[in-house]
Amino acid sequence: MSHYQFKTAGPLPPPALAPNKVRLFQVDMNPYGHRVLLILDAKRAKYEVYEMDPLRLPEWFKANNRRCKIPVLEVHTDHADKCLFESVVICDYLDEKYTHNKLHSSDPFTKAQDRLLIERFNELIKGSLECFDTNFVFGGQQILQTLDIFEKELVTRGTNYFGGSRPGMLDYMIWPWVERLYLVRVVAEKKFDEKRGAYPNFADWADQMQLDEVVKKHARSPQEYLDYYKNARTLSMSYYL
Amino acid sequence: MSHYQFKTAGPLPPPALAPNKVRLFQVDMNPYGHRVLLILDAKRAKYEVYEMDPLRLPEWFKANNRRCKIPVLEVHTDHADKCLFESVVICDYLDEKYTHNKLHSSDPFTKAQDRLLIERFNELIKGSLECFDTNFVFGGQQILQTLDIFEKELVTRGTNYFGGSRPGMLDYMIWPWVERLYLVRVVAEKKFDEKRGAYPNFADWADQMQLDEVVKKHARSPQEYLDYYKNARTLSMSYYL
Repeated sequence: MSHYQFKTAGPLPPPALAPNKVRLFQVDMNPYGHRVLLILDAKRAKYEVYEMDPLRLPEWFKANNRRCKIPVLEVHTDHADKCLFESVVICDYLDEKYTHNKLHSSDPFTKAQDRLLIERFNELIKGSLECFDTNFVFGGQQILQTLDIFEKELVTRGTNYFGGSRPGMLDYMIWPWVERLYLVRVVAEKKFDEKRGAYPNFADWADQMQLDEVVKKHARSPQEYLDYYKNARTLSMSYYL
Repeated sequence: MSHYQFKTAGPLPPPALAPNKVRLFQVDMNPYGHRVLLILDAKRAKYEVYEMDPLRLPEWFKANNRRCKIPVLEVHTDHADKCLFESVVICDYLDEKYTHNKLHSSDPFTKAQDRLLIERFNELIKGSLECFDTNFVFGGQQILQTLDIFEKELVTRGTNYFGGSRPGMLDYMIWPWVERLYLVRVVAEKKFDEKRGAYPNFADWADQMQLDEVVKKHARSPQEYLDYYKNARTLSMSYYL
């Protein structure tokens, strides 16, 4: 049975937004939406979440979003309620819009470096997709090569988090996929713990991230992820990722 | 003969940067580097250009840039001279670093929209590459669909430029490929002028952009582009684009 069986959006769009609120159109368990949820809470934004079934997107949703991109952030503007796409663009927008808890570095060079690392992290995301397609050798290599870069980056920075003494934009942007990596531990505990030793700083970073209040609020257990991806694979729904 | 025959970089890297300067490693006629040149001048940054031959990149250049990305911006930091990649990241960095002539909108929502449009413009870039590969039908469609979106956006904004009353980040980010589109006029003048009529606001915008001092400084003629791409195709060097 699809994970989204009971999450059908209604035939009518939700009402207009209150001026001080934003609305996230999201698919449960989607890591890109997970990014936005982390930033919404890290910035203490007032928001509501509209859960979608990716298999049954309503017509009113598709009308303004022909490419059916998810997540979408609906924002109140002077003219109308308007939509933003792309998790990175949405999160940067939120960081600029809400002044509480600046997540990007105020140093333009560090900020640019962080943006390049967020882009570099896409190779770990691709690696995860390869693993989902049961190409474990190639996917695993992509994941480990990326972890190596982030391990070295933490050593170079000499800080607990990529953002310094607390999680910043780069920390939250990569977190959803790192949280999901722990599902490997459920099926191969020994192998996972061995690999952990090769990335000691990154492993410590991940341990600390799990204690962050914002991360905790949106966390799922490794077993939940495992069940979810098993189900998704049975149904051949790679876009669930 | 390769366009870059006489542009071999030396066996040694250039000297350390002066603290108030940046250095652009660039390949002549490369549109992504063209983007950075426009922003460097729009921001009145002090810079020097290091011209590379893409067929013969020196070892010292590849050592810090294993993926051989071009353009690269070298920046003086407190620790060392460091490199930034990706034209969009470099240009956003320059906009934040140099306060003269703010190019991104100060409104976070407009800035986010502009970033999405810069990304959407990639389809015109892909279309141009398809045309280079002589797939004119498919490539042409991608180009016209993108122009349609930008035409409508100008109408919605009701301004001369995407940035308002003067060129902003979005204007400069898309310009290099629009400047190159004029080469079509050299080979098919009537067809080009007919198509122009379908995008009247965009055509006016392009006419005005050509009068901008920054654009003029880095402009090449349609004939120059045509000769360059003919030569590149003869040599099967699609990465020249």
